[in-house]
Amino acid sequence: MPHITVPEGLAGIRGLMAVRPEAAKPLNELVDVLLHGEGSLSAGERELIATYVSSLNDCYYCQTTHGAIAAAHLANNEDLVQQVKRNYHDAPISEKLKSLLGIAALVQRGGKAVTPEAIAAARKNGATDLEIHDAVLIAAAFCMYNRYVDGLDTWAPTDMNMYRTRAAKVAKEGYLNANRELLKKSETPN
Amino acid sequence: MPHITVPEGLAGIRGLMAVRPEAAKPLNELVDVLLHGEGSLSAGERELIATYVSSLNDCYYCQTTHGAIAAAHLANNEDLVQQVKRNYHDAPISEKLKSLLGIAALVQRGGKAVTPEAIAAARKNGATDLEIHDAVLIAAAFCMYNRYVDGLDTWAPTDMNMYRTRAAKVAKEGYLNANRELLKKSETPN
Repeated sequence: MPHITVPEGLAGIRGLMAVRPEAAKPLNELVDVLLHGEGSLSAGERELIATYVSSLNDCYYCQTTHGAIAAAHLANNEDLVQQVKRNYHDAPISEKLKSLLGIAALVQRGGKAVTPEAIAAARKNGATDLEIHDAVLIAAAFCMYNRYVDGLDTWAPTDMNMYRTRAAKVAKEGYLNANRELLKKSETPN
Repeated sequence: MPHITVPEGLAGIRGLMAVRPEAAKPLNELVDVLLHGEGSLSAGERELIATYVSSLNDCYYCQTTHGAIAAAHLANNEDLVQQVKRNYHDAPISEKLKSLLGIAALVQRGGKAVTPEAIAAARKNGATDLEIHDAVLIAAAFCMYNRYVDGLDTWAPTDMNMYRTRAAKVAKEGYLNANRELLKKSETPN
């Protein structure tokens, strides 16, 4: 049972959004900019970073949600998502993405854990300033979302099909649009 | 030197805001809602939570910035800020705030570290659902901001007067207003 009262039937962060719509708005905008907005990294690649960090933080809801969205962007390749979580070094992804996942893993430990060597490796593999920036901010942001979701002990479905259905919608529409009704309802509580 | 190129003279997160204005907007809105917006916890109390978590994450820029803003809200009592960072149990603050700082310290370790006992202690000291929610989200959010600022190795001034001057402005105007010019300039890069 969550540590605070949330509306029934809304899993993970979605229940919390309904409790605090003023915070839900920037939280949705941020994830939309980072994972769904324009970017030289594909949405699938960015979702893999979010999924990987969430798995390092052992957040079941976030790693399953974003793993499903990553797969939705990547021709439904759920095996690839599992491979990245298990050992991204051996996964069939670009060397650039591997070095950005390496940076993300350091950020998950703490900001000061990021080394000039890790940054240099990413640059050598073709990462731009903006891609390095976004990898760091995605990793940092999921250190927030994961703590928010688990720190309040929210409920998470175990039926993978619930995540797949939701993922298809988010991958297509983006976070702000997919959560539009929830955010709208929250603005006029009754 | 920061890991990526940022405009000269803009310290900490402010340099990063100029690099990525699309992300800067929700990042500013979130901190404004959590620390400056309406709330049953005073702005000073909420800034103390942000400062304490930033000190646990050893982020010099964030703990000094938010420590100065906390002091600006609390009759310039910089000693109180230092006391909270050193050992909040002995600081002259409410028992409610002490138990919320306790929850924040658990969130800093990880979402799953938050115990029902810590939540029950906060409730016993009068904390509402919304106050518990906000303490968790403030702590989680500073686990993001701290990693963002240190993960990109941003520059931080060491002159306390620079923090005090800026803190007086933020405490009075809020984050969105105090960063208005920076956010506006970023929208029309040239």
